Amino acid sequence: MTQTTPNHTQTVSGWAAHDSSGKITPYIFKRRENGINDVTIKILYCGMCHTDIHHVRNDWGITMYPVVPGHEITGIITKVGNNVTNFKIGDKVGVGCLAASCLECEFCQSSQENYCDQIQLTYNGIFWDGSITYGGYSKMIVTDHRYVVHVPESLPMNAAAPLLCAGVTVYTPMNDGGLLVEGGGGKRIGVVGLGGLGHVAVKFGKAFGHHVSVISTSPSKENEAKNRLGADDFILSTEPNQMLAKKRSLDFILDTVSAKHSLGPILELLKVNGTLVLVGAPDKPLDLPSFPLIFGKRVVKGSMTGSMKETQEMMNMCGKHNITCDIEMVNPDQINEALQRLANNDVKYRFVIDIAGSKASNL
Amino acid sequence: MTQTTPNHTQTVSGWAAHDSSGKITPYIFKRRENGINDVTIKILYCGMCHTDIHHVRNDWGITMYPVVPGHEITGIITKVGNNVTNFKIGDKVGVGCLAASCLECEFCQSSQENYCDQIQLTYNGIFWDGSITYGGYSKMIVTDHRYVVHVPESLPMNAAAPLLCAGVTVYTPMNDGGLLVEGGGGKRIGVVGLGGLGHVAVKFGKAFGHHVSVISTSPSKENEAKNRLGADDFILSTEPNQMLAKKRSLDFILDTVSAKHSLGPILELLKVNGTLVLVGAPDKPLDLPSFPLIFGKRVVKGSMTGSMKETQEMMNMCGKHNITCDIEMVNPDQINEALQRLANNDVKYRFVIDIAGSKASNL
Repeated sequence: MTQTTPNHTQTVSGWAAHDSSGKITPYIFKRRENGINDVTIKILYCGMCHTDIHHVRNDWGITMYPVVPGHEITGIITKVGNNVTNFKIGDKVGVGCLAASCLECEFCQSSQENYCDQIQLTYNGIFWDGSITYGGYSKMIVTDHRYVVHVPESLPMNAAAPLLCAGVTVYTPMNDGGLLVEGGGGKRIGVVGLGGLGHVAVKFGKAFGHHVSVISTSPSKENEAKNRLGADDFILSTEPNQMLAKKRSLDFILDTVSAKHSLGPILELLKVNGTLVLVGAPDKPLDLPSFPLIFGKRVVKGSMTGSMKETQEMMNMCGKHNITCDIEMVNPDQINEALQRLANNDVKYRFVIDIAGSKASNL
Repeated sequence: MTQTTPNHTQTVSGWAAHDSSGKITPYIFKRRENGINDVTIKILYCGMCHTDIHHVRNDWGITMYPVVPGHEITGIITKVGNNVTNFKIGDKVGVGCLAASCLECEFCQSSQENYCDQIQLTYNGIFWDGSITYGGYSKMIVTDHRYVVHVPESLPMNAAAPLLCAGVTVYTPMNDGGLLVEGGGGKRIGVVGLGGLGHVAVKFGKAFGHHVSVISTSPSKENEAKNRLGADDFILSTEPNQMLAKKRSLDFILDTVSAKHSLGPILELLKVNGTLVLVGAPDKPLDLPSFPLIFGKRVVKGSMTGSMKETQEMMNMCGKHNITCDIEMVNPDQINEALQRLANNDVKYRFVIDIAGSKASNL
């Protein structure tokens, strides 16, 4: 499709996978001219999300090759369309998961466009002009301004990049749960899984004065959770005695694990009326035993990233509280190695690709 | 235990199962004297709940034989203790699932004693005095007044009996969901399973002006659902096309099915932000696919019966709207046959035992 879209005249260097081997190689492709509602962004950094692995390997059977992954993008605006008033050349901005939505449905009209049933994603989506979207593993992107946010001046552009997906994915359910209110701390929060999403959730919870417990299957994460991230407690979920001792103790749990697991033992940790939010997306159905749900009047909710409004709110909050992701920088020629390590959960906590080679520039 | 409790001096005729065959036979046993906080109730009617089957057959491995089942009890007060001010001799009353709770915890103190972790049930529980509780398959019961409700004069005592469990079990989540507000109709509600609980949920939904869809695996229930109970729509859940056509159409679903099933197709029927409440309690974990939960920001909640406050509110609401259960009356010597038919879902919609032989008296 892309190749025949007439106004796709800008040549861009990027990195793409071409088949289900998932191997990433340099790839030259075309992007559209900057339209009246668009901004063009020189990409500085792009975070590497687990979703990227699923797409390059076609795990979900929906990949349109070649795929240029990447939806945790930060960069500098180089062009703005005539209709764009909220961005100017030189602005530091971010692009997350969304590339387009219908703009007309109840969700688009009420700043919940992430639940529009016509949404198109930043890569492997179909844009309004019929072209396949290419993501942030590339030097430049053209984006409708409605799907762009400002990055606060105080945040480093590399460690801010993963906030565009990992950050907003944990921000939204925590905010919906009333946990991110200034002066409103004191809740007991659990975070299941200490990875790219989980470590940000711990930071958000601590920034707002909550008691945060990390719940993990890895004993090795206890020291890290408590001493580096400031978690108050660590519960080893493979130890029934530890789980039993914390029964009915938590107000809210964020479950970031993307492997199949039973929700029963986790639900037992919640107080009556407590809420468990799933943000990891295991391929296979989770086991939901009815008894801990019913006997505790507990709630299991889903949440998918966040709206553009929520993404900007999250960015502003991170700017104010000086929160970013813990990252490991890689060069574009290390993408394959990094994807493999990411698949092995061997990263603290997010890889960020130094797209512009600006590692030393401290942008 | 019971046999040695000193003040258990009143002889009562009832019906009990004595082993895991589940066979019910007449059984003479003792109940306590009427204490200062107690009321004594001449039992007129007792509904038969699915839970009774699980207990008489020891399906959950927790049955203390002999077990006298029954927690959908209506009757007439014959004695009141000195501390009891809200009931008098001759009052028409009901007893549901609860026999005791700690009275001191946050849940007991806030009228949510059904979530007290010390609750004892009307049968197969351990009362404060150490005795095993015996339920409503019996001629008389002594009950602490805090676990008794008034039955409105307008309701027939037999068809009101199942409201004590089935009624309040569906009332509470529907009320929590804001669906039982006078003049507040117009929501689109789904009811999964048209049995003892489901048929009451349809009545509640219609009484408050909502659009009610019955979701069932049995095509034979369509006529019944629409033409007798007044449901607006019927969705055959075994037909993917019917399910797909109703995608994202419902605000709230009450799932009353107590057999293992996947929640995925049911969740897809909910609008974004919609709520599914489970009140059936399958023994085995339910399958909860993460995608429909996450992509629709949907909610799965549990709910267990209701508090005494909610039970009285439900009774009053039923009195006002003239809602009762559809019942089939049986005599005590038909209990075994009725339990078997109940196990086969062969009842519309609740068996009620005519304990006092008062079928003709129209009490």
